[in-house]
Amino acid sequence: MPNEYNPTDVRSLWTLIATIRDKAPLIHNITNFVVMNNTANALLAIGASPAMIHSVDEVEDFVGISQALIVNIGTLDSELIAACKLAAIAACTVGVPWVLDPVGAGATPYRRTAAIALARLSPSVIRGNGSEILSLAQQAREGRGVDSQHDSRTALAEAQHLAKSTGAVVAITGVVDYVTDGLRVVEIHNGHPLMTRVTGLGCSATAVIGAFLAIEPNAFTATVAALTLFGVAGELAAERSPGPGTLQVALLDTLYALDEATFSQRALVNLLPK
Amino acid sequence: MPNEYNPTDVRSLWTLIATIRDKAPLIHNITNFVVMNNTANALLAIGASPAMIHSVDEVEDFVGISQALIVNIGTLDSELIAACKLAAIAACTVGVPWVLDPVGAGATPYRRTAAIALARLSPSVIRGNGSEILSLAQQAREGRGVDSQHDSRTALAEAQHLAKSTGAVVAITGVVDYVTDGLRVVEIHNGHPLMTRVTGLGCSATAVIGAFLAIEPNAFTATVAALTLFGVAGELAAERSPGPGTLQVALLDTLYALDEATFSQRALVNLLPK
Amino acid sequence: MPNEYNPTDVRSLWTLIATIRDKAPLIHNITNFVVMNNTANALLAIGASPAMIHSVDEVEDFVGISQALIVNIGTLDSELIAACKLAAIAACTVGVPWVLDPVGAGATPYRRTAAIALARLSPSVIRGNGSEILSLAQQAREGRGVDSQHDSRTALAEAQHLAKSTGAVVAITGVVDYVTDGLRVVEIHNGHPLMTRVTGLGCSATAVIGAFLAIEPNAFTATVAALTLFGVAGELAAERSPGPGTLQVALLDTLYALDEATFSQRALVNLLPK
Repeated sequence: MPNEYNPTDVRSLWTLIATIRDKAPLIHNITNFVVMNNTANALLAIGASPAMIHSVDEVEDFVGISQALIVNIGTLDSELIAACKLAAIAACTVGVPWVLDPVGAGATPYRRTAAIALARLSPSVIRGNGSEILSLAQQAREGRGVDSQHDSRTALAEAQHLAKSTGAVVAITGVVDYVTDGLRVVEIHNGHPLMTRVTGLGCSATAVIGAFLAIEPNAFTATVAALTLFGVAGELAAERSPGPGTLQVALLDTLYALDEATFSQRALVNLLPK
Repeated sequence: MPNEYNPTDVRSLWTLIATIRDKAPLIHNITNFVVMNNTANALLAIGASPAMIHSVDEVEDFVGISQALIVNIGTLDSELIAACKLAAIAACTVGVPWVLDPVGAGATPYRRTAAIALARLSPSVIRGNGSEILSLAQQAREGRGVDSQHDSRTALAEAQHLAKSTGAVVAITGVVDYVTDGLRVVEIHNGHPLMTRVTGLGCSATAVIGAFLAIEPNAFTATVAALTLFGVAGELAAERSPGPGTLQVALLDTLYALDEATFSQRALVNLLPK
Repeated sequence: MPNEYNPTDVRSLWTLIATIRDKAPLIHNITNFVVMNNTANALLAIGASPAMIHSVDEVEDFVGISQALIVNIGTLDSELIAACKLAAIAACTVGVPWVLDPVGAGATPYRRTAAIALARLSPSVIRGNGSEILSLAQQAREGRGVDSQHDSRTALAEAQHLAKSTGAVVAITGVVDYVTDGLRVVEIHNGHPLMTRVTGLGCSATAVIGAFLAIEPNAFTATVAALTLFGVAGELAAERSPGPGTLQVALLDTLYALDEATFSQRALVNLLPK
């Protein structure tokens, strides 16, 4: 397909990684209090420039000088939801791509309502675990906290519907990651089970997607590149970690120092046949 | 005593640790912004499933699907106090055990008032340092920040009174940890001085108590098990750490990887004679 | 000059470091949600006692029992600005020194207004990167997030004007750090480029300045000592770090364990000729 990276061509994916390191795009994050530090550090490690700004009094101004926006509802309250909505609307108005992370979307009625309202504000990408994507697709009515009870495969058909109804690329992360625009599906087989023992790595993955959206207009390609990078760095870091404490540190080191040869050797990404 | 673990039998304590790893109880945390990340990671490291949720619009719903609730007033404000109260009341109504961490209880009149009001809402356990427990027992009228100025031994008699007046198990952590239900007193001699140089380890200990309450109905036994695990893991981690940065990382690794033989060899826990 | 440490005498600077370890001053922090954990840990690592307290209902009480106050506007909103102002006014009233960190001062009109209003409330020290200090001096009208676009040297003349107009010592951190009281200028050549890849190290530096203000009445000397310590520890930590994850951990270890011989050998601090 002309004018588009092959979303599973590893050399093209690396080009995007190199572009972030070169351009240092400014990423506006409205995210939860649990992961703010780690998310900012993940963005810095890949070469992006993070800003964590959530006041209703400045999000609309700030999104206008950013290259991408992250909206993450992990520790939402009424003030934060308002900020998320204002920023998302402003992003669409000025043409800044944005990513929605519907943390714990099915856990409470309040959270489900907020997640669905945001999903209707034209995000470029929605990333969640299986339970969150299922809930957002309004089929999983019960939730159980923020850790996933559904594997990513189960949620795939729902993700495709969600992509069609919202216009967003939808990513489900889990043992296998899936990325779909409603028609195409790419699966990524990188990552490591120890990653589930570190809080907020999904939130960091969402932020990394934002950094790729900032430099790659094709949201499908950007999302595949981001999750492949995150999965490769995560498995490399986990393999040399005796536990989740070290993994959190080693992940940042790996995102920072990863080279093309290692990335290419590790990346396991392929387009599913239709 | 039938139907109860011996609170100082190390083999029984390990059984509880193994149960958490097996059951992955969902722990609802309303806690402060300083420690949210570390607390969530400590819970994940021991095998529990943390959720950090504090909006007044959803805490009552969420506590109903949780196995235990943590209430920590470290960075309190009027909104957070309301959320803490609503969640605590809901927890009691639906029979979910909850733990109170009265961070810096004596430091300001505002903080003292909030801590005492929460202590009256039937927590299963109250954990603090010597200064906080003394303050909460309304005998120490002056405070000095959130780090302890009183050793845990000094506060023990007050802790026993506090346990009787509130119905809660009271834990004082310090050089020696004490756990009392008003009558019995267990002391735990694990831990390491370097732990005082890492922020929020007391808050993590509180959250770990919550995880044990989720799988062990006897609050006294649950608290002893939690603090013994935390002290053992802390001293093992500190012994191989050149400073507090490494300790924070190594503690998570140790909580994750600790085995029964090491735990049993290290645990120093005993019931005081009456 | 009698009654004053030579601000570039390394032995005198070490005396201040040793005093903090000895006295453990209580430092009241009103800071952003991204860095609260790291800031508290940096203060603990140098031997100070941090408290992170930001409710409008208690900041005035708490500042009265503290030895220094930090005001950092990183994740400001209307409630936090009110708390910052109340605390700053109370600090001046009771004679507690305070430090302003105008994070991202030029990024939005809201943030610029807040930063300037606080700068007029008689801080003892203002610390920022080149862009923030330029903005605060009302000459740089455009901002670009919170990472610096201007090197510290460019902002020096403006910093001197800002120092004169506010009465504060002004510190610009960057490849070279500058400290000025409007007349004198000290430059510090410690630090390491990898430090820019860890979020919030500038915020930690600000908090460390607060700890020195707590034990040294001369704000110029206190600021020079703090930034020299932070730069030396940062470069030592960076030299043995494969990436930013390890750096964050190693920095805390180094701040904790640094000895006088290593400090003296590394410190590169000198007073500029007039």
